[in-house]
Amino acid sequence: MADMDRRSFVGALALAGLTPHALPSALEGRASPQEQAAAPTDVTRTLARWLVNARPDDLPESVRKEARRTVVNYVGCALGGSPHETLEIAAATLAPFGGPAQASVLGRAERTDIFTTALLNGMSSHVLDYDDTHLKTVIHPGGPVLSAILALAELRPVSGRAFLHATVLGVEAECRIGNAVYPDHYDRGWHITGTAGVFGAAAAAGRLLGITEQQMVWALGIAATQPVGLREMFGTMTKSFHAGRAAQNGLLAALLASRDFTSTDVGLEGKNGWANVLSTRQDWGQITDGLGGSWEILLNTYKPFPCGIVLHPTIDACLQLRAEHGLSAADIERIDLWVHPLVLELTGKKTPQTGLEGKFSVYFAAAVAIVAGAVGVKQFSDEAVRDPTIVALRDRVVATVDPAIREEQVRAVVTLKDGRRLEKSIEHVVGSVESPLSDAALEAKFLDLADGVLPEARSRALLDLCWRIDELPSAAEIARAARA
Amino acid sequence: MADMDRRSFVGALALAGLTPHALPSALEGRASPQEQAAAPTDVTRTLARWLVNARPDDLPESVRKEARRTVVNYVGCALGGSPHETLEIAAATLAPFGGPAQASVLGRAERTDIFTTALLNGMSSHVLDYDDTHLKTVIHPGGPVLSAILALAELRPVSGRAFLHATVLGVEAECRIGNAVYPDHYDRGWHITGTAGVFGAAAAAGRLLGITEQQMVWALGIAATQPVGLREMFGTMTKSFHAGRAAQNGLLAALLASRDFTSTDVGLEGKNGWANVLSTRQDWGQITDGLGGSWEILLNTYKPFPCGIVLHPTIDACLQLRAEHGLSAADIERIDLWVHPLVLELTGKKTPQTGLEGKFSVYFAAAVAIVAGAVGVKQFSDEAVRDPTIVALRDRVVATVDPAIREEQVRAVVTLKDGRRLEKSIEHVVGSVESPLSDAALEAKFLDLADGVLPEARSRALLDLCWRIDELPSAAEIARAARA
Repeated sequence: MADMDRRSFVGALALAGLTPHALPSALEGRASPQEQAAAPTDVTRTLARWLVNARPDDLPESVRKEARRTVVNYVGCALGGSPHETLEIAAATLAPFGGPAQASVLGRAERTDIFTTALLNGMSSHVLDYDDTHLKTVIHPGGPVLSAILALAELRPVSGRAFLHATVLGVEAECRIGNAVYPDHYDRGWHITGTAGVFGAAAAAGRLLGITEQQMVWALGIAATQPVGLREMFGTMTKSFHAGRAAQNGLLAALLASRDFTSTDVGLEGKNGWANVLSTRQDWGQITDGLGGSWEILLNTYKPFPCGIVLHPTIDACLQLRAEHGLSAADIERIDLWVHPLVLELTGKKTPQTGLEGKFSVYFAAAVAIVAGAVGVKQFSDEAVRDPTIVALRDRVVATVDPAIREEQVRAVVTLKDGRRLEKSIEHVVGSVESPLSDAALEAKFLDLADGVLPEARSRALLDLCWRIDELPSAAEIARAARA
Repeated sequence: MADMDRRSFVGALALAGLTPHALPSALEGRASPQEQAAAPTDVTRTLARWLVNARPDDLPESVRKEARRTVVNYVGCALGGSPHETLEIAAATLAPFGGPAQASVLGRAERTDIFTTALLNGMSSHVLDYDDTHLKTVIHPGGPVLSAILALAELRPVSGRAFLHATVLGVEAECRIGNAVYPDHYDRGWHITGTAGVFGAAAAAGRLLGITEQQMVWALGIAATQPVGLREMFGTMTKSFHAGRAAQNGLLAALLASRDFTSTDVGLEGKNGWANVLSTRQDWGQITDGLGGSWEILLNTYKPFPCGIVLHPTIDACLQLRAEHGLSAADIERIDLWVHPLVLELTGKKTPQTGLEGKFSVYFAAAVAIVAGAVGVKQFSDEAVRDPTIVALRDRVVATVDPAIREEQVRAVVTLKDGRRLEKSIEHVVGSVESPLSDAALEAKFLDLADGVLPEARSRALLDLCWRIDELPSAAEIARAARA
């Protein structure tokens, strides 16, 4: 068929609602290769059925606990991100168009419609790159799910217990779908937090809306058709937009479906559905096998330090050495680090000049951990990077690549001026699945993020609400308490 | 690398803002295959520069005329689609969340914020599958572009002349980007009206906002990261959602960029940009070559009949035979049609029972054309399909596949009861690029679509406004006049 012929032909099919794949095999009376492969036809429905029928009572306490930690980390990150320039611009842009004051923008003064709120909260939860991580897929699960349902919970009151259950279900949906296509989907250029996150938001919001199985099937379909996020946007304001838009799109999907706005029944597994169009890998069992028997949220992790995780073992080791030996910079002759090759590749900057550059300097990271004794948002300020004591110690840090060191490991040796050598080897860095961030460290992170956004007493009260979410008559209490 | 290792490794890269592709080649000091291919780095910027600098005075009159026809067809389709159940559900779902009454929903009573308006208008323009078609790519260009800027024009007044210019630029952007990836992108499962349409909306809205070249680069990037539309949704309410969401997403992209919300500089051509992630074909020259020297809007077409285009030659022939010979069903013994194979494949239903089924019956289509003398929205009603006169004639239609007949052709022979044989062969069906719908036919289509939505006098006044758009001090007059 000549090129123009083919095009009009495809056009004709399209206008008749058919696909150019379907017809030739239909004409010839044989199955296409895809059809021969017996693609499943019940992936979306199986997931949807579970999402609408799962019982809160069936959640193990360990899962409930991890969900609470996810809430604490989410609210903290959203507070910390809320004054960011990215949020300032987005909020100012959207202000003239917002609807009724239905929901609270965390850490900010705005109250606006639930869609705008979900977008802004999702953005602030992600903008510092300090949010939770499902390391199997590099999805940041909390932002899309919690931004959608926290806004919804202000409009339609729901108990903290039901809210926490919906959180777990949303995280399960997005991470299972991510598992089915990772890593190919991510490698192809998709920012998986946006593209898979939309399912988590739709699932959680749909559950809280009490939609039927068929409506949940449609909600997942409407979510599938709105994947947000190309990795080309990394390093720009648009990256955090992905997490927010995923929340907003998923919330819209659930609300439309709740009124019987139809979509396909095979949004995930259809030949022109999400997994086949957006990925070269589809492992359907990752979505449908053993639902309710395992919990992806148990694999959620929380960054202990607001920088790339390649720096975390170094910071972990230096903080431990300081705490164990009461180190002070003046006592230290030099610090030797043996690191994974990636560390110097990504964070080998010797003389950083700004807070942002500090995030790419293992030398600064080691020094600031020793001097400050804690590494939070303030330790990556321009002031900290230029602090004479830190700079002097930074210049006495030596980092050497050791191929035997894995990326979650480091070996640090501090040589004191009195000749003593203090050594610390990290096997599993803090914040990993194997060495989870402690509740106390999570609290410290939360309070550090909230500092300057809310008065300390309010931050502590909000933190308490997050931990007690199971007992709250209304989950919206958290949103209201987090408003600046 | 073991699977879990690879995953944490990729995770580490992701958290440092790097890609798993980039690193191995960086470590080994050689270019990846993609890099060796010398991918262009100025596609987005070249297009953006042209979009912000193109001068309204440089538009040929033929282009201006086609843009007016695109406006007429768009407003007609949006009016006709406005009472559809899909719109009823969407409008009811969104009503509680809408912002200030800034813009008019065409054919309906609502006035709401410009984002909600753009979404609803884009949906109603597409919901009848009666909108304009750029046959080279099967993009429906008008809906995304005009839904975005008509809403914007109510908020920020703009002359009809500037509005028409922005329309042409938006159509140029979306169709050129479509040309660069079609057909592979479409064959992969993307509904190109949503995925490419977002660029048209962003480009046109950005132009009317007077944004800078850099802001236009960012607007195209923010558009790129929000592709809406899987073909799996065809046949459901979500299909028309794609056109509306493309308008809304593009409008948001332009507004964010106008406030210096940053995205990548290579949203189209970057390794993880739109064209590489969403298509296996990228013909960059289709986007950047000869900008301003050719006009995609000249290839825009308007469906003469509200059904799949495979039926159009048959309807065209029967309408012409009736007009030329004053035919009446009672005089006709039989109708013989020689048709392209696709016609019986897609529309071979012999005894349709509903208006929708009538769209899949070449027998009904021929009969209703002869009996009614016009084929518009009302001719695909349940009543028409059950009309005894039409049913009796329908059963005397014989259709035969002829491999020599091309899809835009038909041969029709009417045998009268007095023995005469009347023949009509269609070479290029009405509504094609070669045989465009006449202005008069476009007017009739508009009035047919507006019938029952606006009083006839108002429909005619609105039609007049659309034709005179160049002269209007404010393009928003059209939106206000189209409100029910």
